[in-house]
Amino acid sequence: MTKNNTFLLLVAHGSRRQSSNDEIRCLAEQLKAMDHTFAKIDCAFLEIAEPSIQQALLGFVAGGAKDILVLPYFLSAGRHVAIDIPEQVQQVKIQFPEVKIEIATYLGASKNIAEMVLQQAIEGMV
Amino acid sequence: MTKNNTFLLLVAHGSRRQSSNDEIRCLAEQLKAMDHTFAKIDCAFLEIAEPSIQQALLGFVAGGAKDILVLPYFLSAGRHVAIDIPEQVQQVKIQFPEVKIEIATYLGASKNIAEMVLQQAIEGMV
Repeated sequence: MTKNNTFLLLVAHGSRRQSSNDEIRCLAEQLKAMDHTFAKIDCAFLEIAEPSIQQALLGFVAGGAKDILVLPYFLSAGRHVAIDIPEQVQQVKIQFPEVKIEIATYLGASKNIAEMVLQQAIEGMV
Repeated sequence: MTKNNTFLLLVAHGSRRQSSNDEIRCLAEQLKAMDHTFAKIDCAFLEIAEPSIQQALLGFVAGGAKDILVLPYFLSAGRHVAIDIPEQVQQVKIQFPEVKIEIATYLGASKNIAEMVLQQAIEGMV
């Protein structure tokens, strides 16, 4: 697939442990290195860490984004996925109605998740 | 791989949204259907929902488990993975020193996670 104009924002929860937030930043760097699809990839945090979702989205808009996909880096559809992320995204959508901002299905809904869990478990046996 | 004697406990965070907890229970059922490795598979919750980690581990021990693998169903190594889950597991280990209880590396450390994120993002583009 060739590069298109969609900017991808990976949204994680955010932790008081800096190493945990750095893990997300490293993952975003990995995605950038692997990706052949998105115009730009970055990460943001729902709470505690920075950039916030709003900061990151405003950065994308300032960088010319007209089409943004927000991917919740969450394993289940709790309150954060169902309510908190959509609310924060909505605040930016209202400010920039000309920018298309969609929220992708959260990671845990991936059809491959069960297989990944089993593989991780099998590798974890000692 | 043939069935061995390891019991697998998938530990998720737990949510006030019952549908989110049910999602984990469904995943555990999926794992049971797919698996050819573990003696038994179940899920537990760190907080809010039941069974708790302790309840589930005690259930495994009552069911004859001598070897248990706990897999944290978390995406990053925040406080829950680094401290809370090990603390709760430790409380059961102290009670049953003859039972081997190991904690596998949390799901987010899987080497395939970046690929899964990109795939989920690409499928999320509309």
